[in-house]
Amino acid sequence: MSEGVLFRPIATIRTDFPDKFGVPRQSGRVEGAHGVIVFLPEYRSPEALRGIEGFSHLWLLFDFSLAHREGWSPTVRPPRLGGNRRVGVFASRSPFRPNPVGLSSVRLLSVERTAEEGTVLHVAGADLVDGTPIFDIKPYLPFSDAHPEATTGFAEAGLSHRLTVTFAEGAVPPLDEAGLDVLCAALGEDPRPAYRNEPGRVFSMRFRSLDVKFHVEGDLLTVVGWEKA
Amino acid sequence: MSEGVLFRPIATIRTDFPDKFGVPRQSGRVEGAHGVIVFLPEYRSPEALRGIEGFSHLWLLFDFSLAHREGWSPTVRPPRLGGNRRVGVFASRSPFRPNPVGLSSVRLLSVERTAEEGTVLHVAGADLVDGTPIFDIKPYLPFSDAHPEATTGFAEAGLSHRLTVTFAEGAVPPLDEAGLDVLCAALGEDPRPAYRNEPGRVFSMRFRSLDVKFHVEGDLLTVVGWEKA
Repeated sequence: MSEGVLFRPIATIRTDFPDKFGVPRQSGRVEGAHGVIVFLPEYRSPEALRGIEGFSHLWLLFDFSLAHREGWSPTVRPPRLGGNRRVGVFASRSPFRPNPVGLSSVRLLSVERTAEEGTVLHVAGADLVDGTPIFDIKPYLPFSDAHPEATTGFAEAGLSHRLTVTFAEGAVPPLDEAGLDVLCAALGEDPRPAYRNEPGRVFSMRFRSLDVKFHVEGDLLTVVGWEKA
Repeated sequence: MSEGVLFRPIATIRTDFPDKFGVPRQSGRVEGAHGVIVFLPEYRSPEALRGIEGFSHLWLLFDFSLAHREGWSPTVRPPRLGGNRRVGVFASRSPFRPNPVGLSSVRLLSVERTAEEGTVLHVAGADLVDGTPIFDIKPYLPFSDAHPEATTGFAEAGLSHRLTVTFAEGAVPPLDEAGLDVLCAALGEDPRPAYRNEPGRVFSMRFRSLDVKFHVEGDLLTVVGWEKA
């Protein structure tokens, strides 16, 4: 058995989420979340993308670069289960795994040739932190990848958990309409690490160049203000 | 940007296909193809699998260990397109890619505790060569992974291409019924590297401990004999 294989980034993705806190917890949960995949100079070959515009969806294999750790733990506590229940790491999509590789399907919006960055890919539904290194991009093949009949264990438990998002007076951040939509969708997913009821506590989530402040009481999230990050 | 991340195998898979030649070209194409995932001693923790039995399908991220090359080519020639048309490597599932990582969904049949190898996973539909190193196992989450509506470019071109499989007199290999079924399904997928019509040419495909000899004329594949490998 080999010692391993060195995986090198081929690209990075630009998204609205500069921090791990607030990133949607699976791909497609915030459909409006827009990402731009920019290839590293060494991999900036339009030929390597020949035919990719024929596919509606792509797989991204990426580096959980903020979850690098020495060693590994056999169990994790998924936030969707309230952060208390432990499940096996191979029965979870946690970033904290023996090989910190993430897997997300995204919708391909367009392929754009740019003067400064070569050919870039615009994608939707990305659950990746801004600047995440990408190891591989593959076309989504529905005949082998789509199993809508698949059953899941505990993973659906927290899926219906969504918060109602409101803004305190004067607290609406200076964003365009699309940006506000994505922000609200991401906040509605409940970015808190666990569902503890701490109504007084103010959380801060980075979105684009802003720090958005909010608190949560029951199922109601209120944005109370923002700062330039 | 980091230089890369060293991915270490956590497990290997045992399948009926000792060679690349003859392996089904996507997961699920040969549903009967049975695999056994055996964890390396360091990762042989039943805790790491806690809850996995609740999932019907799993993702395997694995090493295309027979496709390691210095450098990379921006285009590949998929066998499904007859081996003549070039497409971008990121628009293909070719094993020859900048980071040689494969992605396959398999059906989880059972979780078995064994005396000699710890807890092993039995899976169906694997398109992996026997002994393939596995980097990661993730649960399949239909709400984010299943896109039955996804559209594909050229990838469907060769999908309906299947061969009729027959046996010359006395040429049926010594396999149990399930083994014969899997062999026939794999042969029906047309293991030849490209669809050239060379009716006289005898090909050899390894299946379990046998070398199975066949030739192809038009859409008819005839098994002409076998040898112990």
